[in-house]
Amino acid sequence: MKLDYDLLLDKNIATPLYVQLYEKFKTLIEENQLENEKLPSIRSLAKKLEVNNVTIINAYKLLEQEGYVYSLKGSGTYIKKSPIVDDLPYIEEGDMELMVNGILPLSKDSINFASVSPTADLFPIEEFKHALVEVLDRDKGQAFLYPEITGYEPLRESISKFLMENYNTKVDKSQILITSGGQQGLDIISKTLIQQGDYIFVENPTYSGAIAAFKSRGARIIGIPMEEDGINIDLLKTYIKRYSPKFIYIMTNYQSPTTYSYSDEKKKEILSLAKENDFFIIEDDFLTDLSFTAETKLPLKSIDKLDQVIFIKSFSKIFMPGVRIGFITLPNRLFKEIVKAKHTTDISSSGFLQRAFDLYLRKGYWKSHIEKVKKVYSQKYKIMTKELNKLNQYGITYLEPKGGLSLWLKLPKDVDALELYNECTENNLSIVPGKIFFTDDSIYSNYIRLSFGAINNEQIIDGIKILENIFSKPFKDSENKYLPFI
Amino acid sequence: MKLDYDLLLDKNIATPLYVQLYEKFKTLIEENQLENEKLPSIRSLAKKLEVNNVTIINAYKLLEQEGYVYSLKGSGTYIKKSPIVDDLPYIEEGDMELMVNGILPLSKDSINFASVSPTADLFPIEEFKHALVEVLDRDKGQAFLYPEITGYEPLRESISKFLMENYNTKVDKSQILITSGGQQGLDIISKTLIQQGDYIFVENPTYSGAIAAFKSRGARIIGIPMEEDGINIDLLKTYIKRYSPKFIYIMTNYQSPTTYSYSDEKKKEILSLAKENDFFIIEDDFLTDLSFTAETKLPLKSIDKLDQVIFIKSFSKIFMPGVRIGFITLPNRLFKEIVKAKHTTDISSSGFLQRAFDLYLRKGYWKSHIEKVKKVYSQKYKIMTKELNKLNQYGITYLEPKGGLSLWLKLPKDVDALELYNECTENNLSIVPGKIFFTDDSIYSNYIRLSFGAINNEQIIDGIKILENIFSKPFKDSENKYLPFI
Repeated sequence: MKLDYDLLLDKNIATPLYVQLYEKFKTLIEENQLENEKLPSIRSLAKKLEVNNVTIINAYKLLEQEGYVYSLKGSGTYIKKSPIVDDLPYIEEGDMELMVNGILPLSKDSINFASVSPTADLFPIEEFKHALVEVLDRDKGQAFLYPEITGYEPLRESISKFLMENYNTKVDKSQILITSGGQQGLDIISKTLIQQGDYIFVENPTYSGAIAAFKSRGARIIGIPMEEDGINIDLLKTYIKRYSPKFIYIMTNYQSPTTYSYSDEKKKEILSLAKENDFFIIEDDFLTDLSFTAETKLPLKSIDKLDQVIFIKSFSKIFMPGVRIGFITLPNRLFKEIVKAKHTTDISSSGFLQRAFDLYLRKGYWKSHIEKVKKVYSQKYKIMTKELNKLNQYGITYLEPKGGLSLWLKLPKDVDALELYNECTENNLSIVPGKIFFTDDSIYSNYIRLSFGAINNEQIIDGIKILENIFSKPFKDSENKYLPFI
Repeated sequence: MKLDYDLLLDKNIATPLYVQLYEKFKTLIEENQLENEKLPSIRSLAKKLEVNNVTIINAYKLLEQEGYVYSLKGSGTYIKKSPIVDDLPYIEEGDMELMVNGILPLSKDSINFASVSPTADLFPIEEFKHALVEVLDRDKGQAFLYPEITGYEPLRESISKFLMENYNTKVDKSQILITSGGQQGLDIISKTLIQQGDYIFVENPTYSGAIAAFKSRGARIIGIPMEEDGINIDLLKTYIKRYSPKFIYIMTNYQSPTTYSYSDEKKKEILSLAKENDFFIIEDDFLTDLSFTAETKLPLKSIDKLDQVIFIKSFSKIFMPGVRIGFITLPNRLFKEIVKAKHTTDISSSGFLQRAFDLYLRKGYWKSHIEKVKKVYSQKYKIMTKELNKLNQYGITYLEPKGGLSLWLKLPKDVDALELYNECTENNLSIVPGKIFFTDDSIYSNYIRLSFGAINNEQIIDGIKILENIFSKPFKDSENKYLPFI
């Protein structure tokens, strides 16, 4: 629609002219009614409306503060594309995830930089077998009864201790719900909290499995840029005012896929924003334990006094995925709803595995296992970072996370990660193009994630050599041969 | 609203008068605009509208055929209460389920006629332990990797064989999805098939956990009366025309809570209705194996040639609940959607338990276990039915299911099952009032379900004695002392 200048201002009412102008533009933008992305220039609009330039400047400023427009120096003022994630490539992301998870199997002899999952040789099989057999001998048939919906009580007790010992986090056993892995935690929270049309905030980029769970309940998802010390707080504030989110979903330590961790300041700010504006923080944690330095990371949950944070813990990456035991913390005010959601989801998680995992934690097997895997991964991490130095010359950069299982590489602007992905696939190298983690399609095509959870030291060296080779040659024209996004 | 007779008919248009009348009433009923439940008598309306009696008769007939009204001989024509399940006591049902599942624990020394779950002494612990240990020795760490989303392939193969051997049902392993128990099957199907506002048909009464799963996706649920040989087919046909259901949810053998099984005729009719009208049949099966006569029950799935039936199998009642392994069959046309729904739900079910359960099936341990539990339950069933004879004198009746784990008792009309429930609780007897299974609140307050899964032979005898005692005395006034429905 062309701008109808006559309708913009009413000089006979008390509302200041710049506020009137702000509100008219706001409505036009929200209703997607403007033809051009660029707003009229200040001078031309002032002239048309017969007002002072300052009126226009103030109106545009207000629009910018509220997140509706942005200004480019020397160029003008532009409408921001709506941050609502509407028609995003979720389906494609889903397929990508399927691929990563083995439904579209990777070629067997490829080097797998795509998977974050640990390899079987690292699993504490002997200790867990002891725990399993002991449970069977001790509990006999009891081991296979339905446990409580919230989970086997001794396991909830062990986890409460685990949280205190490892994360300095106090959560009573009555406030813990055992889930069948971390993804189920997301699913249950979605069921409990999301009504069709609710706004949910996520980091951008983020874990696509979370987006899928939220979308499946009809949430409207807003991505907020992830920075090296956490989410962009200014934009968060703007969007809180505009959208009143039900919750924000974050990964505070070694965020996926960026590997960035939150600063203490940002953690505190998010917590107080959540309190002031009455929304929940869903903190998804699957890697906090994997710090490769003396510094111990703590979850945001550790400083949460008011139960604003629902903490989701997956043990899949630091223990074993096939056990499918995780947990979420339960704010008292949601207890009943969450328990009901768990019940309709799968009644309860396997009582037998809960008993075995309880024994495994109780006997302290846990600690030596974490020490062991930290050693292994920190060595892989060192090799990765050392080898990646060779790619500096091609303009590839990354922030050193000093923990976790991945590196998040920024490629030169002109390199498209999807083309690189195809090129790598041809050379038997699996990488993940960053694009699939972003909530908006338009930008960020020049990132890739390289994970070292599933490969050995030699493969790391060989894999990076292949990357180096690819970069040392000019890129082929993309022929979309491999069509990974079916 | 009072009827505005002037608006009912327009004699100047071509539509036959009785059709006009039918459509006007239809709209008024659908919009809930009529003050009285009773329609005007045929004669009075004919007089008011100055038309022939036959016009009114035909209009009312059409309304009745379409399920909007019913006529009582000698009394008149009445509006049917809308069959849509809107504000039902789900919350209460949920709590009841929670209670049954142990969240609001039953008093320890009470006799538990409420639970369908088997007791621990029946579980095949030794055989399953062998399977577990063998898996650990054979597969080592591999046992704890993420399995395929659809499930561990050899287990899907074993289940395909199981279906053929036990139910004469042909389902390829590629069309099986392993779930974390039967309830998760319902959850995943809800995620895949239900859009907000879709119509879903269920048997009335039915399993409240299914209703909770469907409702949580915003389904509109229509209950169709369950008869001794299956659902009421005439009403099903009427409602299909009116509501175009997404699917119908049924339990063909030893339905819960009624214990009724479908006749072959009704099975076939439902199947052909599903084909003609393009809806799915969700067949939930957890007891088919438990026939106490020479007659073997088969699921509807066994005669489904066109993949109209999605078969959900829970092993919780006939094997062990704490293993949380079940499966659903996957129509090809839903494969991708269902796999995605499973993935967002919990990535995949425990690979370790899948491997162990596969071995358990493969080694044939399964067969002797089923034979064993059938013997035990059929003995309990015999004792139950014998003891229940003593209640005949109080007007208590039931249909002999000749299988399964429960009996569905019809009490005399004047006995309210909730009062009886309270009375039983006072006497340390747990029963389930039938009311919680019905999709409509208005009627059916005189049913109870007695299950013999969780009690021994002595307890059965003692429990029925307590019931007899209660019935031999006049009922106390209900003082709502126990408030089971918090």
